Order: sequence, then structure tokens, then C-alpha cells
Amino acid sequence: MSNYFLRTLREDPSDAEVTSHRLLVRAGYIRRQAPGIFAWLPLGLKVKAKIETIIREEMAAAGAFEVHFPALLPREPYEVTGRWDEYGDGLFRLQDRKGSDLLLAPTHEEVFTLLVKDLYNSYKDLPLSIFQIQDKYRDEARSRGGLLRGREFTMKDAYSFDHTDAGLDVSYQAQRDAYERIFTRLGLEYVVVQADAGAMGGSKSEEFLHPTAVGEDTFVRSDGGYAANVEAFRTLAPAAIDFTGFPAAEVHDTPDTPTIQTLVDSANANHPRPDGREWTAADTLKNVVLALVQLDGSREIVVIGVPGDRDVDLKRVEVAFAPAEVEAANDGDFAKLDKIAGRPGLVKGYIGPWSATGAMLGEESATGIRFLVDPRVVDGTEWITGANEAGRHVFGLVAGRDFVADGVVEAAEVRAGDPAPDGSGPVELARGMEIGHVFQLGRKYAEALGLKVLDENGKLVTVTMGSYGIGVTRALAVIAELNNDAKGLIWPEAVAPFDVHVIATGRDEIVFETSEAVTALVEASGRDVLYDDRRKVSPGVKFGDAELIGIPTIVIVGRGAADGIVELWDRRSGERTQVAVSELAAHFA
Amino acid sequence: MSNYFLRTLREDPSDAEVTSHRLLVRAGYIRRQAPGIFAWLPLGLKVKAKIETIIREEMAAAGAFEVHFPALLPREPYEVTGRWDEYGDGLFRLQDRKGSDLLLAPTHEEVFTLLVKDLYNSYKDLPLSIFQIQDKYRDEARSRGGLLRGREFTMKDAYSFDHTDAGLDVSYQAQRDAYERIFTRLGLEYVVVQADAGAMGGSKSEEFLHPTAVGEDTFVRSDGGYAANVEAFRTLAPAAIDFTGFPAAEVHDTPDTPTIQTLVDSANANHPRPDGREWTAADTLKNVVLALVQLDGSREIVVIGVPGDRDVDLKRVEVAFAPAEVEAANDGDFAKLDKIAGRPGLVKGYIGPWSATGAMLGEESATGIRFLVDPRVVDGTEWITGANEAGRHVFGLVAGRDFVADGVVEAAEVRAGDPAPDGSGPVELARGMEIGHVFQLGRKYAEALGLKVLDENGKLVTVTMGSYGIGVTRALAVIAELNNDAKGLIWPEAVAPFDVHVIATGRDEIVFETSEAVTALVEASGRDVLYDDRRKVSPGVKFGDAELIGIPTIVIVGRGAADGIVELWDRRSGERTQVAVSELAAHFA
Repeated sequence: MSNYFLRTLREDPSDAEVTSHRLLVRAGYIRRQAPGIFAWLPLGLKVKAKIETIIREEMAAAGAFEVHFPALLPREPYEVTGRWDEYGDGLFRLQDRKGSDLLLAPTHEEVFTLLVKDLYNSYKDLPLSIFQIQDKYRDEARSRGGLLRGREFTMKDAYSFDHTDAGLDVSYQAQRDAYERIFTRLGLEYVVVQADAGAMGGSKSEEFLHPTAVGEDTFVRSDGGYAANVEAFRTLAPAAIDFTGFPAAEVHDTPDTPTIQTLVDSANANHPRPDGREWTAADTLKNVVLALVQLDGSREIVVIGVPGDRDVDLKRVEVAFAPAEVEAANDGDFAKLDKIAGRPGLVKGYIGPWSATGAMLGEESATGIRFLVDPRVVDGTEWITGANEAGRHVFGLVAGRDFVADGVVEAAEVRAGDPAPDGSGPVELARGMEIGHVFQLGRKYAEALGLKVLDENGKLVTVTMGSYGIGVTRALAVIAELNNDAKGLIWPEAVAPFDVHVIATGRDEIVFETSEAVTALVEASGRDVLYDDRRKVSPGVKFGDAELIGIPTIVIVGRGAADGIVELWDRRSGERTQVAVSELAAHFA
Repeated sequence: MSNYFLRTLREDPSDAEVTSHRLLVRAGYIRRQAPGIFAWLPLGLKVKAKIETIIREEMAAAGAFEVHFPALLPREPYEVTGRWDEYGDGLFRLQDRKGSDLLLAPTHEEVFTLLVKDLYNSYKDLPLSIFQIQDKYRDEARSRGGLLRGREFTMKDAYSFDHTDAGLDVSYQAQRDAYERIFTRLGLEYVVVQADAGAMGGSKSEEFLHPTAVGEDTFVRSDGGYAANVEAFRTLAPAAIDFTGFPAAEVHDTPDTPTIQTLVDSANANHPRPDGREWTAADTLKNVVLALVQLDGSREIVVIGVPGDRDVDLKRVEVAFAPAEVEAANDGDFAKLDKIAGRPGLVKGYIGPWSATGAMLGEESATGIRFLVDPRVVDGTEWITGANEAGRHVFGLVAGRDFVADGVVEAAEVRAGDPAPDGSGPVELARGMEIGHVFQLGRKYAEALGLKVLDENGKLVTVTMGSYGIGVTRALAVIAELNNDAKGLIWPEAVAPFDVHVIATGRDEIVFETSEAVTALVEASGRDVLYDDRRKVSPGVKFGDAELIGIPTIVIVGRGAADGIVELWDRRSGERTQVAVSELAAHFA
């Protein structure tokens, strides 16, 4: 350590929001270069290399071959698949000296597809799985949490190619199994959750989430084994109800009831339920006006009806309307709506659903605006909802009789206690950090880019693909996030930058001689040693550095050296044991 | 090989200009993604990893620590050192979603300097050498030769930090020694030549050039041990001559002599030398008008006088005027010159040197334009040169008496036979490809970015730095360029993608059983094997693939397998030897 390129810092970095970021910087593993962009110092690079080795070993075991693509790629393939635009501001775009458009790749589906198209042409060449460990770029609006969400980050991305759906299932499972082995070896707890393929297209999609309070994702799981990203959660719709003989809807004056709570209070006070039970927010239908902002900037207004006891979850809505972005309708949207067919417009706080004719309640002409509902709004359900007039609501409005939605959309928030769609019981909510993602792209990319092979019958068939990613640098951060205490990092043995940290304390020559002998002995057992040979540094500072750096096993060579005794210090348990140097070889054997 | 991700190609890539590019693509090592941007296939990645391992080992032996910087960096540090502008069109620049300027780093001097500034503050922390193996970006005007000059390429760049000049010499020598070991291990012949530090600033600078006809650089060397890049070659100036009593210069009519040859012919015909020898081009002074284009686009006109038997070498002139670009003056430049002080302008073909007053010969007012000369134009040399009038030249014009230059510039071409500046005899010219560069940056970057440490006396001193680069992907291409024949690649053992290529030929089960046994046996010796187990591929195709791929040792398992005999095929010599399987283990031991 007297000449190793390493400086530990006493102060936390001012921009550190999470423990891993704080400790990795303080212990000399990484240094910030720009928002979300880091340099790797020797200790950090060693940990990263160990993680990459584990991933490479498991990729090889899964039969995947390693390749390496450039980060800088031409626009064309991404134009063909639409991702040049779909990625929006998240894509780093640039031009070369000749004015050709280039990008820094956020993922590499397009070029992997083109590579296989270039080289392969028969079903006999398949299945094929290829991967790379490579630096990727995403211009995050707000890069946070150090390595947890960087703008430059290292990713293992693998892609599988099959000519049948059954083949894709096998390739997918091989990667999924490899992921389980990788995260187990890394000591990373994970939950495999159903995910929405989102902007990537495709069908089956699962995320490996590490459950952690600093996670950016919310997921749900039931005791019965269901687990899904909230974006992928599917509401268990109740059965439709036969509404024959249901009383007609009635419009009542409900002055000053622009919110659900005021409406429920007013309803209970002035229009009590015939059966004597209290009205609740769940009896009301809240119609929310949203704007879908398309890639070309155009806005479509949609109205979504959800039970009044639930908020709309914009992230869930965005999945439904991807790649459009979704936002609350603004005054301009409402003003434009007002002009369509000269209607009086939407009355905020009193908006009602559309009639079966496509017109708003109380009107005659179709609006041309989509009215979508939560899956719970099945035929025969009765609702208190806006009458499209200020201060008036309609009671007993029956879905399927008094209004007909243009479709169903997963827009409402998911709540603890909601039933899992597979019938496995109520779900609970938890926070997680995505550490891996496996999904079946299907034929989307192969179709767009023309990747076909000849099948057994000599017919050209489009290849079906899978895409599989692990955030390498994020995994490192999550491991650091999990393995630390107030004093510093505590690396699991599998990824520690060194196996053993030898500390010489005091000034006696015998201490340094013994330390060197111990270092040689431990290295002879095949372990890497970081040897703190600094002569003018106090034992307290050395111990503090060792705790901060977090190598799992520490050997303290001090006064006992004269008697051939050293101390073994387990960084995780804090336990210290005296051991004779003569027994150390056996200990490390 | 039946499932390895590899396809050899029958056709040469249409854009391949050099052998290495052609063979690396055909043999399935790399694939082009965009001009100068390549993807690495499994075989290529393995060779690259072996080169990187050799470099890492020698960097460790030289005491350098490995770090890793991002490719995407903020503008600011490069702005401070001036390189944001100086790199011109060669720098990939981009902006993030917030409009911040970023670049893809061409080299990393700035951020290494800032890292050390961040962490170190005392001479006790030094010396320090740190390196990375990292992907770099340069927007080459014309990327050519496949990997020889890519726009994205892998480089090992190291930087040393010392607080004394003597320390820098030691750090520099350690890297230089490591480079010699690396290139020797890679089997790459090299010449260490003096180089000009050029746009990088700094003082001592040496290039490791691999002598090759496809090289982009020209260098000179003498039998006495001198070697230099032509840009760094320094002309051995003759001693000045006492011109006391030299006859006065005379202007003669020399109609229709706009070129050196016509002038020499006219001089010999009409104005023979008094001593009877023939006039030659070397007796004439050719005054060349050049434009220096500064970074801000402004143009400075300079006139450079060189002996008439030499061309101006623009690359040498550019080094002298860096970071300005140099080009021949255009009509616009001449026109502007015409207007300065209302003079008649420069008469092409008859341009003369400036007088001692700074005015052109035959004029009175100073031009304000710099007149520079070749080092051979020492005081007392006599010249035939233009008289600044169409059809007229001046004879016996004496340097130092009739004209005085504003300075000396290395502008003339270097020719075989020119004397080496160190007196080691005449030089010869050769072509080379730069594979390494070591140079002493000195304090330029540390000064610009404020990297200082406390010295032994507690005084702040600016750190002095070295910068050391090896083009990893270029080295790979040069190795391929060197090691091949008409059939394909022939890798040196140190970097071959596999050590041994086992080929099963024929259809008998015994052949495949023997091949598997041979593979196991060779792998047991610690060697990597590529096993060609393809069942429906003819021996001829397999042999062709093996020759193209270029693994140094090939084992052919064929008919002899029934008798326990296989063939050892040395890819380089072409020699084939029959060996009993029972003796193979001893052979590979």
C-alpha cells in the first residue's frame, strides 16, 4: 500500500445519495467524471473484473459465445426498427465529420440481428446465443445513486436466435438458469418478476429484481408465488353482472363536490344507499383526462375511468401506450376539446363517461375521443360519476347499459391486498432494483431487419430472438449496497478486490519481516494480498482503511510477531483470533 | 466448430485495402459496422485478449497500476488544455439532453491529470504510473486499412507523474523498456525513432515503428544508429561562409523559366558558372508561398525558401506550425497579398526572397509577411532565385548580405543520403506503422490543470508527466499483416486464438472418437483446442478453413486413426508429420 494507487477519503462525496456510491468513492474504488459517468480505480476495476469473470463462466456454461460490438454505431439499423426516435432524449446522438448520424448504443439488438443475418442462413446454424460485456450509454434525465443508474455503464447483453418458438423457449430458459447461477454466485438475493417488454417489443419478459429499499422499481408478489413488476401486473377483473331490472340512472344536484371525498360525503348525506350501507370512493367512477404525446410531438387526448378509490399510475399507463409519453391533460388540451363539434367541453371535477354512441353523457354527437376503463369496470357494475355538468353527478350509471368504453386499460395503481391474477392470493408491494432482464423479443427485430433462415423444408422463415441483460456495474453497486456497515464495505469473497489484507503495525523490523512472510505464505495458497506496509501511518488509520476498503479477511501483524503470533480479523463478524504464524498455512490451505 | 460462432467467407470484403483487413474479415475475426468501426467475433476477441494480457503483465512489471476511464467525457478539461479546439474535426463531439458539451476521448491526458490532482498532494506519493486499456475515438478523415486506422480502437495508454525531471526520465525509461518487452513478446519487429511531440506538446518523444510497406509513416535511419520520424528529422546545417569579397548579385533576363528545370537550363546556356561547372537545381532557391490555417480559420501567408532540388514536405511544415494546418496558397491569398501596401504582388515562378529591410527584393516597404528558409540557406550561400519580375532572375544572391530570413524552418523533404544530424552518416528512408509512442509531456498538462505537489522543502511544484500509448487493435492488425500467406493467417503462438486445431476427416466413427481423445489430451497439456467436428463438411473445406484461420498447430485425424496414427501439420512451415496418438502427450508436454 505504500505505493499502490489508492487514496481513501475522509469525507463523503457531496453528491452521494446512496450508501454504495458514498463508500465506493470514499474507499477509492471509483471517481466521478461527469453526472452518471465514473472512472474506475484499481480496486474497483478488480471487483468489476471478478464479476465479469463469473458472468463469462456462466455464459460459457449456457453455451453462449462472446463477441464485442462497438459503442459507436450508425443510425440506419436503429432507424429501421424505430428505436432511433423511440428512445427520445435518452439516446446520445452525434454526427461525424461527414455529417453521418451516429449513436452511442443503449443496447445492441439491431446489430446483433444484422451480424447473424450476415453470417447465417440455415436452421442448421441455429440455435445460437452470443453475448458481450460492453459499455453502454443512456442519457438519463437524472442519473442518480452513483453506479445504480449511470449514463455510461457496463452491461452483459446476450441475444439468442432460433427458428422455432419452442427453440426460443429453450434458449430463454438456458439464459434464465444462467442468471440464477450468476446472482447466486454474486450473493445477490433476487425475485424473478413478470415484466412488460415495454419499448423493446416482444412477448415473455421477466426481470430479476433485487429487493431493496433504494430500488427504483415497485413490484408485487403473492404468497402463492406470483411476482410481477407493477407495470406488468394484470388486474383480476370480476365477472360481468346481469343488469336486467337494474333501476335507471338518476342525475342529482351535488353542488361543490369536485373531489371524490366531497362527492362521497354528499352522496351519503343526501342520497343514501337503498341497502343502508355507506357509499365509498370505490362506488364512484373517476374519469381522468390524459394526453398521449407521440414521438412526433402530436397529442392525443384520452379519458380513462377508474374506481374513485384508486389513483392513476402513469408508469402503468405509459406501458399501455408505449412509445407515447403520457401526461395529465393541460389547459390547452381542454380548450381544444371544447371546440370539437362545438360542445360545452369537459367540466373538471364533473366529467362523466361516454355513452354507447360515443358521445359524452348528455350530448348527442360522438366525441372522437377514446374512453377507456379500468378492468374492474365490467358490464353490470353501477357507478356514481360526473354528469358533465358543474355541480351534478349521476347515480346508478350501469356499465354496458348506460355507457360503453372503447377499451380496457391497466391504468389504476396496484395496491397491497389486490388479488394476484393467477389466483394465488393477495399481493404485497415491495421495492426492487433491476439487476437482470430476460425476454423473448420474438420476431420483431428479425422482421424489421430481414433475418430469415431456410427451415427443414427449404422455406424461408423469420428467426425468433431473445434478449438478456445484466447490469454489471449496477450489480457491483447493489453488492456494495448490501455488504457494508458503519465502518465501510464488506465484500463477499467471490468478488473482493483482494482475498486477504495484511496489516503491519508498529515500527519493529520483526513486524515487517513477519508481514512479508505472511504475505508470501498467503499468496502461496493462491490468494491475492493487499499488504499495508506503510511505515509512517498509525495502526488506527490502517485499521480504519481496512474497514473502509472491506477485504473480507484481515491479518494484523503487531507486537505478537516477536512470538510468532498474528491476529486474524474477520471483517464481517468483527471477530479477532490469535493464530500462530506456523499454523497460518494450514488455516489458508 | 459444428456449433462455434464462426463463418469463414470465400469472398474478400470489397472495402479491404490491406491484407490484414481482408484476412481478418474472411477468417471470421472481425466485421465492419461503419467506416473504421468494427465488431469483434469470438476468434478476434480471443486474440485481442491475449495481446491485452501480455500488455497488462508488462505494465505490472513496470510498476504501473490499471485504472479505467470513461470514453464519454465532459468538455471542460479539454477546453482548459486547448485540445477541444486543437483536435479539429478529428474529435467526436456531442451534447447531452441538457445541452452540456461532451466528447468521445481521443486520449486521456486531461482526466488522468485531474485524477492525480484530486487524490495526491505530496512528492512522497510520487512517482506514479497508471494505465488503462480502453476504447478510444478519433473521427479520421479517411479511416483505412481495417484495424490499422479505425475511428474506434483499443489503446493502452499510460501516464507517469513525477516531481523532478530526473524522476520523469526514470518513469519514461521504465515504460520504454516495457514496450520493448511487449513488442518482442508479440513478435513485432520495431524501430524506435525520434518523433515530434506535435499537437501533444512536450519534449522527448519516441515512436515505436514497425517497418512495413503498408506503414503510414516515413522514417529515416543511419547505419550509425540514428532513427527518426521524417517529421522529427533535423537537417544538418553547413557552416556559414565568409562572404567578404563575393561579387555583387546580378539580375538577368530569363524568359520562360517558370520552373526550376527551365531555369537551370537557361542559366547553363546563357550565364555559365565562372568556374565552368554546370549549374544544378541545388544552386537555385525556390520560394514557396504557403498558407497557415489557424484553428479559428484565419490564414497567415508565409514564404519559405528551399534549395531548388528539394520539394517542400507539408507534413514536416505542419509540425513546425502546429496546431495550424498548412496548405499551398490559393489565388485568393495571392490576390490579398497584391493589395498589401499596393505592391505589384508576387509573380508566380519568379518569386524572390525578402531583403534585409523586410521588403521583397526590388521593393522598399516591408511586406509584413514572414520569409523563412531551409537550414541549408546559411549566411554566405549564393543562390539563383526569382527577381520578383516575370522573366527575370537574380544570380549570386548571397544569404546574410542580400537577404535576411525571419527564421529557419524544417520544410524541405528528407532524402536518402542526407546526413544524420548526429553525425552517424547518411540516412536511408523506410515506411513504418506506428505501434507505440512514448513521450515526455513535461509540465504542459499539469500546468494547465493545476497539478502541483509539495516537494521536500514544503514548496508547491508542478508535476512533470509522461504519456505512453500502444494501439492494441492496430498491433493485432500489424501482427496479422506480418503473419500470413496466400492461404490465410498464421498466428504466432503467443497470440493465437487457439493453440491447436484438431480436424476430424472422413465419416468413420473411429475418426471422431480419436479426435475427441486427441482434443482431451491436448487440452490436458494446458492448450486451447478448436475442434473441427463438422460431419457434413469435406476435408478440403476443413483444411481451407484451418489455413485461413491460422492456428499454428493442426492435428489431422483421418484414415490413420484406425492404426492410432494422426498427422501434425505446422501451419507456418506447411510440414506434415505422422505421429502415433500414443506419442502425442509427450509431444505436447
